[in-house]
Amino acid sequence: MVKVERGTTVLDAATSSDIYIDSICGGRGKCGKCKVTIDGNVHADTTDLLSAEEKARGCYLACLARVAGNLTVIIPKESRVESHQILMRSEIIPLPVIEPPLIKISLLLSPPSLIDYMSDLDRVTRALHNLGIKNVTIGLPTLKKLSRILRENEWNVIVTLMDLWDRQEIIDIGPVSDEDLIGVAVDIGTTTLVVELVDLKSGAVIDSRSDYNKQVVYGEDVLSRILYTEEHKDGIRKLTSTIRYGINDLIRELVIDNKMRYEKICRAVISGNTVMMHLFYGLDPKYIRHEPYIPVMSYVPQMKAVKLGLSVNPNAYVYALPCRSSYVGGDVTADVIASGMSDRKEISLLIDVGTNGELVLGSESFLASCSCSAGPAFEGGEVEFGTRAMYGAIERIWIDDAKVHYSTIGNVRPKGICGSGLIELVAELFSNGIIDRVGKIQSDKNNIRIQVGSSGSQFIVAFKHETAINKDIMITDVDIQNILRTKAAVYASSNVLLKTFGYKFTDLTDVFIAGSFGNYLDIKKAVTIGLLPDLPLDIFKFIGNGALGGARMVLLSKSMQNKAEEVVANMTHIELSVNSMFFKEFTSALFIPHTEIDQFPSIVGRVYT
Amino acid sequence: MVKVERGTTVLDAATSSDIYIDSICGGRGKCGKCKVTIDGNVHADTTDLLSAEEKARGCYLACLARVAGNLTVIIPKESRVESHQILMRSEIIPLPVIEPPLIKISLLLSPPSLIDYMSDLDRVTRALHNLGIKNVTIGLPTLKKLSRILRENEWNVIVTLMDLWDRQEIIDIGPVSDEDLIGVAVDIGTTTLVVELVDLKSGAVIDSRSDYNKQVVYGEDVLSRILYTEEHKDGIRKLTSTIRYGINDLIRELVIDNKMRYEKICRAVISGNTVMMHLFYGLDPKYIRHEPYIPVMSYVPQMKAVKLGLSVNPNAYVYALPCRSSYVGGDVTADVIASGMSDRKEISLLIDVGTNGELVLGSESFLASCSCSAGPAFEGGEVEFGTRAMYGAIERIWIDDAKVHYSTIGNVRPKGICGSGLIELVAELFSNGIIDRVGKIQSDKNNIRIQVGSSGSQFIVAFKHETAINKDIMITDVDIQNILRTKAAVYASSNVLLKTFGYKFTDLTDVFIAGSFGNYLDIKKAVTIGLLPDLPLDIFKFIGNGALGGARMVLLSKSMQNKAEEVVANMTHIELSVNSMFFKEFTSALFIPHTEIDQFPSIVGRVYT
Repeated sequence: MVKVERGTTVLDAATSSDIYIDSICGGRGKCGKCKVTIDGNVHADTTDLLSAEEKARGCYLACLARVAGNLTVIIPKESRVESHQILMRSEIIPLPVIEPPLIKISLLLSPPSLIDYMSDLDRVTRALHNLGIKNVTIGLPTLKKLSRILRENEWNVIVTLMDLWDRQEIIDIGPVSDEDLIGVAVDIGTTTLVVELVDLKSGAVIDSRSDYNKQVVYGEDVLSRILYTEEHKDGIRKLTSTIRYGINDLIRELVIDNKMRYEKICRAVISGNTVMMHLFYGLDPKYIRHEPYIPVMSYVPQMKAVKLGLSVNPNAYVYALPCRSSYVGGDVTADVIASGMSDRKEISLLIDVGTNGELVLGSESFLASCSCSAGPAFEGGEVEFGTRAMYGAIERIWIDDAKVHYSTIGNVRPKGICGSGLIELVAELFSNGIIDRVGKIQSDKNNIRIQVGSSGSQFIVAFKHETAINKDIMITDVDIQNILRTKAAVYASSNVLLKTFGYKFTDLTDVFIAGSFGNYLDIKKAVTIGLLPDLPLDIFKFIGNGALGGARMVLLSKSMQNKAEEVVANMTHIELSVNSMFFKEFTSALFIPHTEIDQFPSIVGRVYT
Repeated sequence: MVKVERGTTVLDAATSSDIYIDSICGGRGKCGKCKVTIDGNVHADTTDLLSAEEKARGCYLACLARVAGNLTVIIPKESRVESHQILMRSEIIPLPVIEPPLIKISLLLSPPSLIDYMSDLDRVTRALHNLGIKNVTIGLPTLKKLSRILRENEWNVIVTLMDLWDRQEIIDIGPVSDEDLIGVAVDIGTTTLVVELVDLKSGAVIDSRSDYNKQVVYGEDVLSRILYTEEHKDGIRKLTSTIRYGINDLIRELVIDNKMRYEKICRAVISGNTVMMHLFYGLDPKYIRHEPYIPVMSYVPQMKAVKLGLSVNPNAYVYALPCRSSYVGGDVTADVIASGMSDRKEISLLIDVGTNGELVLGSESFLASCSCSAGPAFEGGEVEFGTRAMYGAIERIWIDDAKVHYSTIGNVRPKGICGSGLIELVAELFSNGIIDRVGKIQSDKNNIRIQVGSSGSQFIVAFKHETAINKDIMITDVDIQNILRTKAAVYASSNVLLKTFGYKFTDLTDVFIAGSFGNYLDIKKAVTIGLLPDLPLDIFKFIGNGALGGARMVLLSKSMQNKAEEVVANMTHIELSVNSMFFKEFTSALFIPHTEIDQFPSIVGRVYT
């Protein structure tokens, strides 16, 4: 039972009650993902995204349906943002040398007397000075409790010092028993949030939590979220508080489950793409969306948690990994750090495909980045039965003639197909001759799963009786074209990046695949469709959630923080939107696996014999 | 018409309605200054501070009278905190070299393009870097408006840079027309507040405003205010907001009267005694009151105005002059700066007498300070008709046998006698033989003004018919003893300070007299009673409100700020409460002018011939 004002959209009403309905376009009536069934008083704008049959049985788009009185809403499974699979792993081998910018120092002070009557703060700074620690400073909240803590602990205390430029700030003071040094690494993805609780002394991850980025209700991708801020007066504030609340919810879980106080968390390092960083800090992202696509900043000086409303020690400093450009953000900087590619003599390529694709090429002697609008196909967008990697998503597919074998996340009845499933599906369709090199379904084939629908041919992956949604799950010619555009963008970007610097794929010793998408990818099948280059399989290395792993490395090490800043300072950015080579490469890459088939010798062998 | 809860004291009820009743003890029923007449329902504790006659006519102490129903309160003139005389002048000759830690720099930036697409912040820092300005940082509020301001002004802007440690922080950005650089110097006195609006380019004082420190209703002196915070749960918060509101009220007047925006004020420098600094920052001062008298801090790192709730540019940094000890505060540091004594080869003495007395001895090669509990006599406390320097206070007195000539502040009918008036009165009484060397009124003298009251002899300064309070204004034996204790404390402190370093008064080339009290002082008469040493008159120099002057010098000059910190670091503090020499000197100084009369050769000549 939710009470809202007349005229509120059903989407907004649900959001305001913490019920999350899927919406890729940000409530603009464009994507058709937020279908709900309504019984009661509702006013709705007309839309082509609903069939006559759907309209007849009371189906509406939640973003276009406005409350006009009492009503009951049924949210079908496929419209729900539900339990999910978020990549939280990030193997960092080796760990960096652990040298966070924080230390805890025990002080056994002589109590003041009529002869030794310096101020409490001077007594503490004198003791630190005697230990060789100079330029000590302190903020007001710590200063306010200083005298009490000193006396309660009979002048035997532990101080937490934060290394800031040329100063050492006392960010906390407590009893000597309070020895732990704890921080959080935070990955703010467009789709997901992950928070790791890290022991800054051992480098161990104590625990981690993840959730969807609840900003999805304001738009699936970064552009629709920027649009939301432009179209809603209160938009930036809403998106900023959504992201901060989201992080705080995860920190709360971590703190409660690990029987810890918030104040124990003395540092936070955050990575995210440039738009997420703008929205986290409450900065207006609008100029990113308009030519020449300029962000407010690439780097925000570290600042206290209290200024950002984070539920950690209010004096803890928050550092965000710097961004290179509007579309190569702090998440990519973190990927580079996590991969270690900037420390290697050999040349490697890093690919992070999410809603957007970002690529970095380089070695210890150079770095170059580019980004491509990969399109949302691999995240479930622009594909009718596409879905995010949630429970019930088909993630693995093998086709054997007319037989389709698949597995779903959570091993439950399928609700849709996620990114890795779509790549496998296209590869399998191609390998089985069900689609041709331009991705067209061969409707003349004798296959019970091939049908001709209103918008061209379609292939049934799972029949209605097998699914959780009481509908056939299928893929259409249109869907396949969208997937091919995405893979072509990624492959073409890789190629342009290499060619710009005079390299070819075979010069690479490593291809690092980052991001949640990469982790579930079947490399062979990704090569089959021409998403990844045709290289020996042991060259591909999954680095898992590099955005998180890089954030943790920076959390643990001052030199990694410096390295992150160097990476950004030294990275050449190639802007593909003004790059003529890109359009040629993109067009060539729209085929399966590619127009120039000799770029994929192993596929030639497997498919064309 | 004021509505309050039953049980509220009349003093609190008045305060909460911005009506200020005099109270020296902080509402503790001790000082008897808050007498009011009440008609109506009131419950009051018994007190010896009211005579039977006063009680009979409905007179109460406002701090002991609790509202029990409707009532009417009449506040007699002598209990009101009214129009006043606050020292705002401070002559600084010469002005320091003007080099504030702030600069404004005009930037004509090239607009971004698809080829030159760095972030807005990077564009600004690149331009600054090209001008040789490195390590540029920025806070969130400025960053939030950066992109809009750049575009509104077509990439032609002026930035305000604040010099912080090894960084340069962009604290504001605006149109190029916005060239002024404005700051405020603030003197937080125990009794008075003064704010000066200063042009940081020319060094000129644009305007200034002053008022009482409304904290007086919580106690006249620093000790009673500390006691208030100890006895009231919400005490620190109340005293802190009182002082901040007080400063903000004065800034508001300045801003409105000078047709300026708050945001124009880009820096604030504050001076005040150690307790005032604690209360300004919201720090608990209680350990200052208890042996061994330890302040929380002697120095607070400069911090943003927004953290302190000051009505200036929220990004402006606020700097407070450092304190030396619990009773030698930032006001004394400012006095030293304003006097220039720490830059001189010759040895000088600085005396600042307010509610407490602080003294500094030294030259460019050494500095030493001490403080003495001068007692509140010179501020109107502990003297029956004593009053602060407000309208109607007698400030000048000449006695010619039985004739008394006096002048009052504002030339109105007298209401009481302020500090300078009391010193002149005692000097005149002594010179005319009305009191003896121990300060006893010669009641056997044939003088119409001499009476014997319940607590000893008394001398009528102004008869009832001359006054504004319909009572004789007089001084008693007890009053004179209190005044003598105050002058003895100051003289003895001076002597101890000199002797500790092997000097005598005649080694001094200058005696600087600071503070509002000093400015109205008749030096000859102060020497006559033995408050000041018997030196050639041209050695005494009034520096006016040195606390304000020093704050302005620091506001205008980075090197003065450094000097302030050096002064504190290099100043030896002599703690008189554990100094055996002090007690001997104090006892000797209780006579007029002194036990050792040869210390006052000119007085011997004038009085004893």
